[in-house]
Amino acid sequence: MTTPVLPSWNEGPARTAILDFVQRVTTPGPDYLPVLDRIAAFDNDGTLWVEVPLPPQFDFVFQTWRAEITSDPSLADIQPYKALLDDDPAFLRGVAAQDPAVIQSILDAFARSWTGCTPSEFDAKVHAWLASARQPSLGRPYRDLVYQPMLELFDLLRANGFRVFVCSGGGRDFMRVFAEETWGIYKENVIGSAAEYTYVDGALIRGVGIQGPINLGPRKPETIFAQAGRMPAFAGGNSDGDIEMLTVAAFALLIDHDDADREFAYREERSLSAAEQCGWTVVSMKDDWNTVFALGEAVA
Amino acid sequence: MTTPVLPSWNEGPARTAILDFVQRVTTPGPDYLPVLDRIAAFDNDGTLWVEVPLPPQFDFVFQTWRAEITSDPSLADIQPYKALLDDDPAFLRGVAAQDPAVIQSILDAFARSWTGCTPSEFDAKVHAWLASARQPSLGRPYRDLVYQPMLELFDLLRANGFRVFVCSGGGRDFMRVFAEETWGIYKENVIGSAAEYTYVDGALIRGVGIQGPINLGPRKPETIFAQAGRMPAFAGGNSDGDIEMLTVAAFALLIDHDDADREFAYREERSLSAAEQCGWTVVSMKDDWNTVFALGEAVA
Repeated sequence: MTTPVLPSWNEGPARTAILDFVQRVTTPGPDYLPVLDRIAAFDNDGTLWVEVPLPPQFDFVFQTWRAEITSDPSLADIQPYKALLDDDPAFLRGVAAQDPAVIQSILDAFARSWTGCTPSEFDAKVHAWLASARQPSLGRPYRDLVYQPMLELFDLLRANGFRVFVCSGGGRDFMRVFAEETWGIYKENVIGSAAEYTYVDGALIRGVGIQGPINLGPRKPETIFAQAGRMPAFAGGNSDGDIEMLTVAAFALLIDHDDADREFAYREERSLSAAEQCGWTVVSMKDDWNTVFALGEAVA
Repeated sequence: MTTPVLPSWNEGPARTAILDFVQRVTTPGPDYLPVLDRIAAFDNDGTLWVEVPLPPQFDFVFQTWRAEITSDPSLADIQPYKALLDDDPAFLRGVAAQDPAVIQSILDAFARSWTGCTPSEFDAKVHAWLASARQPSLGRPYRDLVYQPMLELFDLLRANGFRVFVCSGGGRDFMRVFAEETWGIYKENVIGSAAEYTYVDGALIRGVGIQGPINLGPRKPETIFAQAGRMPAFAGGNSDGDIEMLTVAAFALLIDHDDADREFAYREERSLSAAEQCGWTVVSMKDDWNTVFALGEAVA
């Protein structure tokens, strides 16, 4: 093969560590990994595409809620619609902190929006949003803002017998709409927070609740085991919600958003400390990537 | 390729219908199916291996319970242990009818046996059982009693771009122990009734409950959607618990156990009626298969 390997990655410790790991697990020796065990798992928001100012799914959800408030102005008086209209940072901090009352108000709103949908009805809504939505500060479609170096990492892993999974706190069915075209990953390799669907008269109908807790933190190894039957050998993430998934992997990659010029600069302190303590490979977007986005030039 | 196609299948309507379907969905035309949508899903007990007198997992469970009764004779007075010792057919009818009290007593017993296990501890128990257990009337290891024609069907489907899933009422983690070696199916393509595992201090620990209802009937399309993100194009089953999964598939195959000489003869009336009504392809084990078992000769 003459295809270049990881061309958007600069020479440096992160690229070297990845290539070294892949070499070791595919070469007879003490670190050799049978093909069966070659599972890789990646977070999505902030790991595979931009998550600032908010993960893109929020934009989809907020657009849905704004339309609902227009149809039913009484919603403006209750959460989470009120927080959306007031641009209320305290409510968003409650989301980040996983405040149970805040999370419940959001789950109730999800139920209001999508209970009774079939999978294809939900998919159509996500498709419509994908076609029109733009990331607010970069002005581009969200799918342009997938990280090119991560797609090249998928290629490298697949070329070495890995099955690549995405394991995100975001919506499983939301991600599955674009997973195949964007990541080259089958729907069945996408794990996320998931609505309950019930089989009724030959069709699947979305119910009120979600299956278990939001897919973050300790829930990630649990859902990877449920879906894949084994722990990932390689894991990639960028935030505190990824710590457990990175902990169980033989090789852990943590993306550090330190590139204010080409993307955004912000620090996930708890995961960066864990990386230092556990010897994970930290990726500096600024230093390790010569290209950031998959479908566009630098946009800043 | 000069490998023969479906060599254990006799010329006849079932073999012809399978080959015709595969031909149509892989050839440009009105029935062409994109590779992404080529999902096949199969029941296990009675579809991929013997289920008479009971699905093999019962043997594993009963062996576990007998050992527990020996350690703690007081269990002999409560269900389901009492039914096991008494060889009580009424209790088994309660299992078949999914009587909630009967099912709960069994789930309680599962919790008694395996709560607190790690996945590798559970796997070791299944491995030990697989190595020693014999099907009582045929006298062979259970893995010898996998149906050779179905393995050939998997080969045909995979050669035509299908991803093959198993979707059984049986235990997901039980099947995953032998799925890769026996069926050539990755653990991630095995769907079944599943224990809850919780992430604690870097390890997964089996909890008390199971995830949702037993994986039968309407639950099968629900779990296939949850795992794979789409409905199967091809489905295979043999019993009333498979009707919904067969209903949602473009091509449905129903195994009819009509071969008292080489295997067993029993009828699943409700699913056979559904097959007639819906035009599913019914496989007569007696007429359509020239070989039954994967690893042995006819054993009757």
